[in-house]
Amino acid sequence: MRFDALHAAKVLEDTESMVKLLGDERLDYLLAENLRIVQSPSVFAFSLDAVLLSKFAYLPIQKGKVLDLCTGNGVIPLLLSTRTKAEITGVEIQERLYDMATRSIAYNGLEGQIRLIHGDLKDMPAVLGYGKFDVVTCNPPYFPSQTKAIQNENEHLAIARHEIYCTLEDVVRVSSQMLKQGGKAAFVHRPGRLVDLITLMKKYRLEPKRLRLVYPKAGKEANTILMEGIKDGKPDLKILPPLVVYKENNEYTEEVEEILYGKKN
Amino acid sequence: MRFDALHAAKVLEDTESMVKLLGDERLDYLLAENLRIVQSPSVFAFSLDAVLLSKFAYLPIQKGKVLDLCTGNGVIPLLLSTRTKAEITGVEIQERLYDMATRSIAYNGLEGQIRLIHGDLKDMPAVLGYGKFDVVTCNPPYFPSQTKAIQNENEHLAIARHEIYCTLEDVVRVSSQMLKQGGKAAFVHRPGRLVDLITLMKKYRLEPKRLRLVYPKAGKEANTILMEGIKDGKPDLKILPPLVVYKENNEYTEEVEEILYGKKN
Repeated sequence: MRFDALHAAKVLEDTESMVKLLGDERLDYLLAENLRIVQSPSVFAFSLDAVLLSKFAYLPIQKGKVLDLCTGNGVIPLLLSTRTKAEITGVEIQERLYDMATRSIAYNGLEGQIRLIHGDLKDMPAVLGYGKFDVVTCNPPYFPSQTKAIQNENEHLAIARHEIYCTLEDVVRVSSQMLKQGGKAAFVHRPGRLVDLITLMKKYRLEPKRLRLVYPKAGKEANTILMEGIKDGKPDLKILPPLVVYKENNEYTEEVEEILYGKKN
Repeated sequence: MRFDALHAAKVLEDTESMVKLLGDERLDYLLAENLRIVQSPSVFAFSLDAVLLSKFAYLPIQKGKVLDLCTGNGVIPLLLSTRTKAEITGVEIQERLYDMATRSIAYNGLEGQIRLIHGDLKDMPAVLGYGKFDVVTCNPPYFPSQTKAIQNENEHLAIARHEIYCTLEDVVRVSSQMLKQGGKAAFVHRPGRLVDLITLMKKYRLEPKRLRLVYPKAGKEANTILMEGIKDGKPDLKILPPLVVYKENNEYTEEVEEILYGKKN
């Protein structure tokens, strides 16, 4: 689910003096004009799913430790930083994306709050220690690695979208390993994987607690799921009100508008 | 989720000559005025959930075999009979409810299509044979048997609402045992049991395929889930558009109105 409004090239003329942009990279706006993010159509551009996950995830406000796996160009840590003073760590396996994220964090002056790690999420329990985080977020690759679509994508996009370097099971297992007892994991995925997601969460002691379904339009099937689990939580899933993205006239609904651009005055 | 419109006593003066009513039993309307059903506030009265399940379930139109477990006063077989010519079997463990169902089937002249069995669903594989049905439906007891609420209910209501004679695992296991390969099971339950339901369906080879969430009003959490699984189906869950029951003014939404009373002319 891409949204072109934020992809539109809104690069200010003076930005090149403040951030180095490579190839077809742009410096796009995030959350109206509060933050800027480096992205590129041929390497990585964040999706609405990442924005919805950033809004859906529970966060401690004053302190704590937050981990974002599969962080890509750092969109989720950037968005989370507007909601919490907690330390945020982002992990990305692709050096090219890690580099984009690093430049965005620096551009926004957030090096004091956001730390980026270039590495494989499967190594993080050894690197960062078990059970140290209050919250883990992840917008993982959605698609199996054995599909035809993959052949039409370049390496960067293929790795971000397909389960090449990590499977859903890796994501759920590592999320659980990194969380304290009672810590919360928030994931975004496709409805077709809800059964797998729930099965894996139960397997790795992340009790599903909050589920929200995202529908592209009223009357359509859901195309996105937002799920929060609590490590060793008590079973009792709540299903939140549906989130509809577009109105009949193809404009964003008020709720999505507010998530993207903040409350109107 | 009860709906009082259909519970309202609309007993015609001449009905006692056509059906024997016991105690506080009433002969209520089902689907506007097409069908009649015997029920009683102190023994068993069907809920909106049963009506929604009857509409949600896939049915063969011309022929086939359909089984309804925990059939209560037979509301689901009665409703299904309006959508299919298939043979329908209803199983009920409580003799008092089985008796109400039997009188309703007779009153509506549906003895040729609907067969009722007074028995324990756990015995049905032995009684009816394994793998003989195209569709199984079940609106099971929702609540654990160890709760305080149970002490405030009479025996009939307690058995219908609490997992006293059958657990959710019994329901899912027996549903799978009764279905042909490729047959479909449809269940209604509470969101708090979605994780258990999915886990049990996977355990007993009923692949979750269609999920619909029912919300009492726009902006509220879901309070009911409708789930269909296919025996040995290929994993790929679809999440249907949300179903909202009441409008802001507390009238039924158009969709629920149509499910309850049929399309308006």
